[in-house]
Amino acid sequence: MKYPNSSKVYVKPNTSAANRGMSLEEDINKTNRYYLTSDIAVIYKKPTPITIVNVDYPKRSAARITEAYFKVASTTDYNGIYLGKYIDFEAKECNSKTSFPFSSIHPHQIRHLTDVLRHGAIAFIILRMTYYNKDFLIRAQDFIDFYQSGNRRSLPYAWISENGFEIPMTYQKPCDYLETVNRVYEM
Amino acid sequence: MKYPNSSKVYVKPNTSAANRGMSLEEDINKTNRYYLTSDIAVIYKKPTPITIVNVDYPKRSAARITEAYFKVASTTDYNGIYLGKYIDFEAKECNSKTSFPFSSIHPHQIRHLTDVLRHGAIAFIILRMTYYNKDFLIRAQDFIDFYQSGNRRSLPYAWISENGFEIPMTYQKPCDYLETVNRVYEM
Repeated sequence: MKYPNSSKVYVKPNTSAANRGMSLEEDINKTNRYYLTSDIAVIYKKPTPITIVNVDYPKRSAARITEAYFKVASTTDYNGIYLGKYIDFEAKECNSKTSFPFSSIHPHQIRHLTDVLRHGAIAFIILRMTYYNKDFLIRAQDFIDFYQSGNRRSLPYAWISENGFEIPMTYQKPCDYLETVNRVYEM
Repeated sequence: MKYPNSSKVYVKPNTSAANRGMSLEEDINKTNRYYLTSDIAVIYKKPTPITIVNVDYPKRSAARITEAYFKVASTTDYNGIYLGKYIDFEAKECNSKTSFPFSSIHPHQIRHLTDVLRHGAIAFIILRMTYYNKDFLIRAQDFIDFYQSGNRRSLPYAWISENGFEIPMTYQKPCDYLETVNRVYEM
C-alpha cells in the first residue's frame, strides 16, 4: 500500500500476542532498571544532548529553560559496566520489512563505536525490526565491516537475521540484551 | 571578608601564574578531546539531564524547545573506557579554603559510584580546590568510606591533601587525570 506523494511503503505492524507494547527505549530502560536493582549491571541511557540558549530564574520556583535546541549526539545512547567490562551500544527501531537504512544511524555514532571497540569495549547495536516483532543484537564490528564494505545503503533483513542475534524478552526484561551478550561474547 | 546578609566567607582566589583560566568542566572536556584525538581513551561528559515539557516545530527550521526543566542527575557526569577498563567519575569545584561540603554532591551520585565500584569500575572524584589552585583525584572508595563514617558534613582540606592525589596540568591537558589514574591504580 502506497500513499500519494510519499515514497514510504506502508508496512502493517505485526500484532501478535507477543507484540511489545512500548518503545524500544522504554523497554531498554525498564530492562536496565531490572539489571540495576538485581545488581547484574549498571547501564544507563545518556540524556538527550541539547544546546541551552535561554533560562529564566523565577523567584521561589525552579529554573525554566525557555529556549533550547536538540544537538547531534557525539556518542551512542547507552553505556555502562557489566562483569567489569565497558559496555556501549546504540538502539534503533526500524519499521521497514526489507532493510535498515544507514541514514538512520549518524556517522558520529559509527565513529564512536569504532573508537570504543579499539579500546576494548563490548559494543553493539540493538535493532528492533517492528514488522517482525524481533530485537537483534548486532556486533559493532560486524556492522562496521558491512557498512564500510561499500556500495550498500542499508542493512538487508536477510543479513540481519543471519548475522544478528535475537534478543529474548520477558515481562521484567522486555529487551534482555545481556542474555544475548553472554552467548555472543562468551561471558 | 564577610558580606552583609550572607553567611558565605569570601576567599581570595589564588592568582598565581599557574592560575587556570577555565572552569574545571572546560578543562576536563579539553583534556578528554586530547585523550580522544591521541587515541589514549574515550571519555565523555554526559549531557545535562532535562525534562522537556514543550517543543515547537516551526516550518523550515529546527525544532525549538520552549519549556524544559533541569533534572537531578542519577549518575555521575563522566564515563568512558581507558585501557579496556570502565572509568567513571564526578568533577566538583570548591571555593572553600577549609573543606568540601558533602551537600555539594548528590546522594544519587554517591550511590552510583558505589554501584559501579562493586562492578569493577575505576571510579573517583576530581576535586578542584580553587583557593589552592589544585586539582585532586580522590578514589571513590576512600571518599565513600569517609562519607559513611558518620558525623562529618564535609571533607576537610587536610584530609583531601593527605588522601587525594594531585592532578598535573599542561597546556594540552589542563586536567591530566589519567596520568594520576596510572599512578594510583598502577595501570
